[in-house]
Amino acid sequence: MDPRISIVTLGVSDLARSTAFYRDAFGLPLLADKSSDGISFFEVNRGSLWLALYPRHLLAEDAGVEDRPGSFAGVTLAHNVRSKADVQALFDAVVRAGARPVKPPQDVFWGGHSSYVADPDGFLWEIAFNPYSWIE
Amino acid sequence: MDPRISIVTLGVSDLARSTAFYRDAFGLPLLADKSSDGISFFEVNRGSLWLALYPRHLLAEDAGVEDRPGSFAGVTLAHNVRSKADVQALFDAVVRAGARPVKPPQDVFWGGHSSYVADPDGFLWEIAFNPYSWIE
Repeated sequence: MDPRISIVTLGVSDLARSTAFYRDAFGLPLLADKSSDGISFFEVNRGSLWLALYPRHLLAEDAGVEDRPGSFAGVTLAHNVRSKADVQALFDAVVRAGARPVKPPQDVFWGGHSSYVADPDGFLWEIAFNPYSWIE
Repeated sequence: MDPRISIVTLGVSDLARSTAFYRDAFGLPLLADKSSDGISFFEVNRGSLWLALYPRHLLAEDAGVEDRPGSFAGVTLAHNVRSKADVQALFDAVVRAGARPVKPPQDVFWGGHSSYVADPDGFLWEIAFNPYSWIE
């Protein structure tokens, strides 16, 4: 696995409020052409990392975990790879190496191909191919 | 505020186990000279971001929040600045702009100067001067 975090996603209770907060209070640059009423992306670290805001219950649903404090931190870290085949290969490799499989690789509604694994504390990593973003 | 996340810190229940997991299962490069028995740092995104592992109860203590699921996600995002004075100036600015103050700027035991604010969902951002790391 390349040492890379592509996206830090915060699961928020009010997307419009949090988007305004990060844009106005923190002054982060909203990626308007990538964002929508349903998700917000901000470009940080000179474009090498995105901060995403997504409704918390939908983030839990995307990972296939229960949206309960204690079982879901409300934060995910995404590691994007270059192809669907790379998602499967990396998912298999890290699960063999000890990561807990949470969601096997599958196509997702937004056009990507995504999987989730968990670290020993249950922190979620999404391993995904996202045809709309590639950050290296 | 410059659009920058310097460090993503995961509050873990067993530091040795999680350090082994990220080093061996994920293959992340441990910054051995920056890490210790008490904290682990990994360099990601070509050196522009660190992933830190720190005992969860100590991370909560550092921020001055209760270590309870629901009130503490177990993750913090650090935004490092260049001086103690910059910590105070940025803390004041984001609090004026609507961030919730959690811990006012103060010297901390490891030699830095640190503060915490929270976003609308309580996600914690550390605004800090760290004389031992500067990533831009």
